[in-house]
Order: sequence, then structure tokens, then C-alpha cells
Amino acid sequence: MATLSAQRKHKVTVVGSGNWGTTMAKLVAENVKEKPTLFEETVQMWVYEEDVTFSKDSKHYSGSDKPEKLSQLINQVHENIKYLPNITLPSNVVANPDLPSSCKDSTILIFVLPHQFIARSCSQLAGKILPYARAICCTKGVDVGEKGIRLMSETIGMTLNIYCGALSGANIASEIAQEKYSETTVAYDPPPMDSRNPTPSGSPNASQVDLINPSKPNPGPRSAHLTPLPAEYPPLSHENVRKLFHRPYFHVHMVSDVAGVSLGGALKNIIALAAGFVDGLGWGDNAKAAVMRVGILEMVKFGKAFFGESARTSTFTEESCGVADVVTSCMGGRNFRCAKMAIQRGKTIYEIEQTELNGQKLQGTSTAYEVNEFLKSQGMEDDFPLFTAVYNILEGNNKPEDIPNLIEKKH
Amino acid sequence: MATLSAQRKHKVTVVGSGNWGTTMAKLVAENVKEKPTLFEETVQMWVYEEDVTFSKDSKHYSGSDKPEKLSQLINQVHENIKYLPNITLPSNVVANPDLPSSCKDSTILIFVLPHQFIARSCSQLAGKILPYARAICCTKGVDVGEKGIRLMSETIGMTLNIYCGALSGANIASEIAQEKYSETTVAYDPPPMDSRNPTPSGSPNASQVDLINPSKPNPGPRSAHLTPLPAEYPPLSHENVRKLFHRPYFHVHMVSDVAGVSLGGALKNIIALAAGFVDGLGWGDNAKAAVMRVGILEMVKFGKAFFGESARTSTFTEESCGVADVVTSCMGGRNFRCAKMAIQRGKTIYEIEQTELNGQKLQGTSTAYEVNEFLKSQGMEDDFPLFTAVYNILEGNNKPEDIPNLIEKKH
Repeated sequence: MATLSAQRKHKVTVVGSGNWGTTMAKLVAENVKEKPTLFEETVQMWVYEEDVTFSKDSKHYSGSDKPEKLSQLINQVHENIKYLPNITLPSNVVANPDLPSSCKDSTILIFVLPHQFIARSCSQLAGKILPYARAICCTKGVDVGEKGIRLMSETIGMTLNIYCGALSGANIASEIAQEKYSETTVAYDPPPMDSRNPTPSGSPNASQVDLINPSKPNPGPRSAHLTPLPAEYPPLSHENVRKLFHRPYFHVHMVSDVAGVSLGGALKNIIALAAGFVDGLGWGDNAKAAVMRVGILEMVKFGKAFFGESARTSTFTEESCGVADVVTSCMGGRNFRCAKMAIQRGKTIYEIEQTELNGQKLQGTSTAYEVNEFLKSQGMEDDFPLFTAVYNILEGNNKPEDIPNLIEKKH
Repeated sequence: MATLSAQRKHKVTVVGSGNWGTTMAKLVAENVKEKPTLFEETVQMWVYEEDVTFSKDSKHYSGSDKPEKLSQLINQVHENIKYLPNITLPSNVVANPDLPSSCKDSTILIFVLPHQFIARSCSQLAGKILPYARAICCTKGVDVGEKGIRLMSETIGMTLNIYCGALSGANIASEIAQEKYSETTVAYDPPPMDSRNPTPSGSPNASQVDLINPSKPNPGPRSAHLTPLPAEYPPLSHENVRKLFHRPYFHVHMVSDVAGVSLGGALKNIIALAAGFVDGLGWGDNAKAAVMRVGILEMVKFGKAFFGESARTSTFTEESCGVADVVTSCMGGRNFRCAKMAIQRGKTIYEIEQTELNGQKLQGTSTAYEVNEFLKSQGMEDDFPLFTAVYNILEGNNKPEDIPNLIEKKH
């Protein structure tokens, strides 16, 4: 007898277990437990295995300094003592050090890996996941080069031959882990598919597919290569995807603009550098707000120029992944702070990076260079005077004091 | 012989000489000097006369503590020692304590008075200005009550029977006086008029004209009552109005949306209170950015609900008078700081106001009450959950901790 209710439930894996990955696993696990008709209770979390020891002030410290496996510890004490200490995880988060095993039979893969590990992890997963799985990329950033722009979600989607959306917002992980109120934007918009007549699944490979190039139309998600979700599963509508992420302390707004959501999380770092430069000059809040506003409008223009109508103005001006993430990044983010310090101390930002960041690298500087290389290749540097000014300040061709003059004509 | 060049020049008066008024007089005077074909060189500045004495650390202090007239001192030392000390004014700023005399023969009146003096000053000027003068209101705020909303520019325009635009932005006066970079938005959009066939000038009076009421269409500028600018003057196009205000350190963006520009400067103070409340709870930058984003969207909705299509979304989301002014106000403005302090110290905002503001009043609290009274009268409190939450927190009906829950359904 036919039944209207779904017979299978979605199984969820979080691919990644750093600060942000563990935070996502925590909130997703809270949600799946509350929605047992939609989701299986266990949330797998892939852990890049390493040896860890408890610090002496951990409540779990037993006097032994013997190293233990991170994944085993997480499953024992329900805490990621290395990357999210002092936050208890729901017991339905299960750490798994084996990547293919952690994703086996999962219909929803949530990618929360550092930028540089995305491609490699996807290659290891290719062919070992459900063909009809769906992914959401929570890693910020895009791959930009002279040849074009590729979104993280595109790398994931093309390598695994599945649809991949994106989550981004004004989301400082530690605040969300503590259940302090925040918002986010989730872009999810798989192409329409006829589940009764699935087309044969081709197997495009990221390395064979051109980067997005303004001279060619954006390939976008290609429904011909996607396998429809079987009808026994609850549909992955905006409503159901929202249920996976929305918490009383983490408000989710669903949109369809994957390009805009992804670009916002990358380009905001260039704006944060600019805001840091003018703040370092002691120019005050008017100037900082002006740079933020001009930066948001350059984001809008960038989206339209290289992703056409699929990048919506409102994604940048109205969503958490746009205006709110710019605000947060320019209030106290790492790029803002280092840029400000560089100007105040009369040093280069690279000197500040070395002394202040414990070997970590600023995302803003590499994004500013990559975006500039791309804009140059398109002959469009002058159309993005703030992005171009940041590059030229980093290169020593301009001074922060030049910013008002450099952006005067265009904004 | 007919000539294409204008035979007369615009004469400019700045009505007001406080911190912001004196700053506007300074920058406008710098501009008119550089554009002698458009503007007369002298800029009149109306000064509310009072007795002042030099402070002992002023460079002008001569050992005498004898009080002198503020207007005379400004014209002697080219400095407003009381309201904008240590900033030298261009010598073409001429202080004038007589209101009608200061505006005589001026084609451009720039109003920069405290909110509560606007109506009275306009009454004193009625009938004593050029019938074809044009005004720009730089005072932030709107008059809101149970009966409706009236913009400052409407009060000015209706009382004087002239067209009045508006200037607003992320504009902390002291930073602009020091020529630190900032941006602003100028809304200027007089109705089309046929200067060859001027219609007889009626004389509507502010007290006879209804407040804007959602049940009636917005009266807007009524061309039938306006006197066209004589053709001997350079046209007051967006380009020429921009030339009056734009400086290398003060970037002007021209728009046509007077309602949006005016509402932004008023409603941002409610948002700043909300941002202060959540920041006072120690909720961090995610929460603060979320409240700002939600607030901007309530501004957009408010504009659309009560001013229709004339209030454009982009005025709030893309212009200095919208998003940038919200950012500045939520970074360090007075409403933000007092709201934050109230939560941190467990006091009411009125107690903080008394101890911290030297007898000055917060604009945000009165705006929050006025807007709530109006929304209540329209049965629309629930459509603006953040504005309503701020009112209810001020009233003690809600706690700041309730904000996420209160806004969850609508945003």
C-alpha cells in the first residue's frame, strides 16, 4: 500500500572536526535528535586522527600524560579537547577517523574542512558515497586565479558528482559553541530533476572541468549528471534543510544563491583589511563604516560581473553571509586587527602576521592577491577600486591615506 | 543676446551653528570658494546668539574673562569656540545672529538645527525668504506619533512653502571637522516644474496639512505650490547640489529618496539600543551583527509600509544614511553605549542617561516610544519584532535575553 510518509531517514556526516566542524556537529546533532522522523539519530563526524593529551586543567585530566587518539577521546568524554575544549558534545555525535567509513550511507555531507584539505578529501571520497547524497559546504573562501573563480561548493560537487550548497554567515565558532545568539545563511538550490527518469550518471572530474571564466557561461549545477534523491527519503526542501541547522541560538535564513553566499565569505576578508588600514590611521568610525559600505558594493559588483544574475544583490546587502559577516570581520576579526596593527606600528602586515599569529596565515592577503590577479587578467582592476587599493597597499604601491582618493570616482 | 551661462549665482545660508552646523558651514564654504561660477563666495551662518568666554587653553585667550557675543567672536577669530573649538573656519563663513537677515536672498538654505528648534525657526522665516529658495535638512530624526510620521524636511518644506531635501550619513561631526574621511547621502528630488509658466504660489501651512498617515497617500512635494527657480540661476541638478557638499574627505552620493534618507537617521537609534543590549549581555560580535542586520531589514519594511515605493530598499541597504550609519551608531554611538552600560550594570537606561550624559537625552529611547505608539495605532507591532522588542525592554516587559526568540519568527 502506498504511503505518503517517507520510509527512510537522512543520515548526516560532518566532514571535519576543527573548531568550526565540531561546533557544526554539535548543533546538527541537537537538531537530528529533535526531528526523529526526518533524520537518523547518529551524526558521524570525520576526525583527522592525531594523538592528544589532556591539559592539566581539563576536568577530564586523570593524572596521566599518555597520548591518546583524538577520535577515541571524543567518543569517550564527548568533548573535542583539542579544538573545542570545555564544550560538551551531544552523545549522538560519533567521531570516526576513517573518511569513507564516516560518510558511508549518508545522504547529507556537511563539509567543514580547512580550505586546503577540501580537494584531497573529496578525491578520497569519490565513488565511495551514495550517488544521491547532497552536500553543504561550510568552509569559507573560493579558489581564485588568473583563469577564473571556483567556489568550494563547486570543487566538492564536481569531484563527488553530487549537488553541493553553502553555509556562511557572521559566525565566530566559539560564540556559537557557547550557544550565544547568531545568524547564518544557507544557500541550497539543486536543479530540478525527474526522479522517475533519472539520467545516466556521468562522472565529471574537477580537474577536467573548466574553472568559471567570464568568457564562458557559468556551468552551474548540471542536472544531467546528478542522481535524484530516491522518493523514500523526505525531500531536501528549504524547510527540511533549515531544520537541520536552525537552533534557537542559531537562526538560519535559506536562499538559493550559492555563488553569492560563497563569495561573501571570501571577499569580506579584503574589506576587513581595508577597514583595518583606515582604523590604523586613527580616522574613526565614519571612515571605517564608509570602507565597509563601499566594500559591500564591490562584492555586489563582483558577483554580478562574474556570476551574472545568479549572484543576487540582496545576498550581499541583506543576508548574514554578506553585510553581517562584513560587520563582524571589521569589528574584531584577525584580518582587521593585523591590518590595523601594521599601520599603527609602521610595519608590513607580513611582519605582524609573523609576530602575532603563531605561524598561522591571514586569509585576507592571499585573497586580495588572487582577486587582483584575476581582475588584472580581465582588465577590470579600475572597476573595483577598493579591492585594487588593498592589493596596492599590500604591495607598497599605495598608502592607506590614498584610499578616499582612489575610491572617489567610482562610489 | 541670449547666453547659455547662468547670470546669477546661488547664495547659501547654513541655518544653525552647533557642532554639526558649524562643520557643515566649513565644508560648504570651502566648496563655494572653489566654484565661483555657481555660488556666491560668502556663506551666511545663522548663530543663536549667546555670551561666551574663551577657555584659558584657547589659542585666542587674551587674559580677559569678559563675555563676548558668539557671532562676533566667530567673525573675529574664525572659530566657533563654544561648539567646534580648535577648528579654523574659512573666512567666507559669516556668522549672523539675525535669522531672517541671514537667509535674505539665499537660494539654498541648509538646515542644521536641533530637532526641537526646526518648527519654530521655520515659522520665523515664513514669508521672509525667496519664494524659489530650496532647502536641505541635515538634522536627523522624524516626528512620529500616533497620528503618523512627518519628516523634518516636510516640516521645513510645508512651513516655508519650498522644496526641501535631506542629508544624512555615517557622520560624526567632529571627525568631519578634522577632515577625516567620511561619506554621506543627499536626497534631492524636487518635482518637475515648468519655469516658463509658474503656477500661482499657494501657502500651505504645516499645521493645516495632515501628518502622513498610512490610510492616506503620502502627499509628497506638491509642485502646484512650488515656485520654480528662475532660469538665470544655474540649475539645482544632482550634479550641482553634489558640488555644494562633496569634498575630498566628504564623499557625497546623491539619491532621490528623501523619505528613506530621513527614516534611516531616526530608526538607526532604535537599532543601536538593541545592539547595546545584546553587547551588554556579553553575547559577542555575531549577535551584534545579527541585530544590526535584522534592524536594517525592519527599516526597509517600515519605509515600504508607510512611504510606499518612494522609500527604496537600496537607500537602507546600500547608502551611507542606511547601513553605514547603523554600523557607526552600533560601534560607539551614545545610544549603543548607554544601552550596553545599562545591561552591564543592571540599571535602567534612564539611570545611565542621568549619570552619564550631563543632562542630555538619548534620541533612541524617545524614537523607540514614538515608533511603538505609531505601530500600535496601526496594529503592526508584530511586523516589527525588533523595534517592538526594544520598546518592551525599555518598558520592562521583556528582557534583552528574549531578543532572539522575539525576532525568530519574522526574520
